[in-house]
Amino acid sequence: DANTKKMAPRIMPHEIYVRTAKDSDSTVAAATVNWMTQTSFEPPLVAMGVKTDPGAHDTHKMGNFALNFLGKGQVCTFFNPAEAGKSTISDEAYHDGSSGSPILENAIACIECSVSEIVARGNHHIVIGEAVDAHADAPIVGGPMMPSFTCANSATMYLTVVEKKKLNCF
Amino acid sequence: DANTKKMAPRIMPHEIYVRTAKDSDSTVAAATVNWMTQTSFEPPLVAMGVKTDPGAHDTHKMGNFALNFLGKGQVCTFFNPAEAGKSTISDEAYHDGSSGSPILENAIACIECSVSEIVARGNHHIVIGEAVDAHADAPIVGGPMMPSFTCANSATMYLTVVEKKKLNCF
Repeated sequence: DANTKKMAPRIMPHEIYVRTAKDSDSTVAAATVNWMTQTSFEPPLVAMGVKTDPGAHDTHKMGNFALNFLGKGQVCTFFNPAEAGKSTISDEAYHDGSSGSPILENAIACIECSVSEIVARGNHHIVIGEAVDAHADAPIVGGPMMPSFTCANSATMYLTVVEKKKLNCF
Repeated sequence: DANTKKMAPRIMPHEIYVRTAKDSDSTVAAATVNWMTQTSFEPPLVAMGVKTDPGAHDTHKMGNFALNFLGKGQVCTFFNPAEAGKSTISDEAYHDGSSGSPILENAIACIECSVSEIVARGNHHIVIGEAVDAHADAPIVGGPMMPSFTCANSATMYLTVVEKKKLNCF
């Protein structure tokens, strides 16, 4: 039924990324992203659902963007829409990456992307980006893992307990 | 560097879905999917990265597919490529959904989709599907949650401990 069709995606866990970009006049844009997946190894591509309102779209109109991977301590900061300040994004410090996009100092990892294509379908559009650079402060193997959450409804979110357990399928 | 660019996506947790389809001559196809995200609320759209080899592509050439959401008990079954048997998929029973796609009896939820568009970019292509029906056996609010995993390398996978904790950002 219609209700299940709407609710079923709520079983999927979501991560929180912050998409950032900087214009040629140094205007910084930032937006929180929950709908994101890798889609190709070679070239490394990602696809994400992006709101069609001007503010969110501005980020990727810039041609390049960075996807900042948030650690557990940053989830609450970015549960509200990300806000670009004078030298911070939602009060978090950043520096410029090799492609010019802002990289949050406290992100556990970051992928810098160039926009490959925008598929204008649905009330969010699908932005496809190619990774042109990447950063990770901690060692990735055995290192951090992104926290996930599910939405029971708009007022109740559940966080996944982030704990690595070796998978014994092999 | 090149290594970080390749490794950074390994921090992202992945879920395991089984994409199933049935041809007009009742041929069943099934493939395991890890790269998947919702991309729009209205209409409800999903996007996923799909291998470009004939076997995987056959699934969505059929026009409709179902995305079966796996519970914790099914993760190990489908860590290997899904295999369609005579009346089972990787030894799991299924029934036909309203769109004709096979639905695994033990899936915790399932979305039936029609293929909207295929974006042929990268060594996997991006299949965009519109949800036309959905099913969930258990109540979704406060119900099950999909297990996630991360890859340290091709031989070592880590499973996220699936435990809901109310998020106190609000």
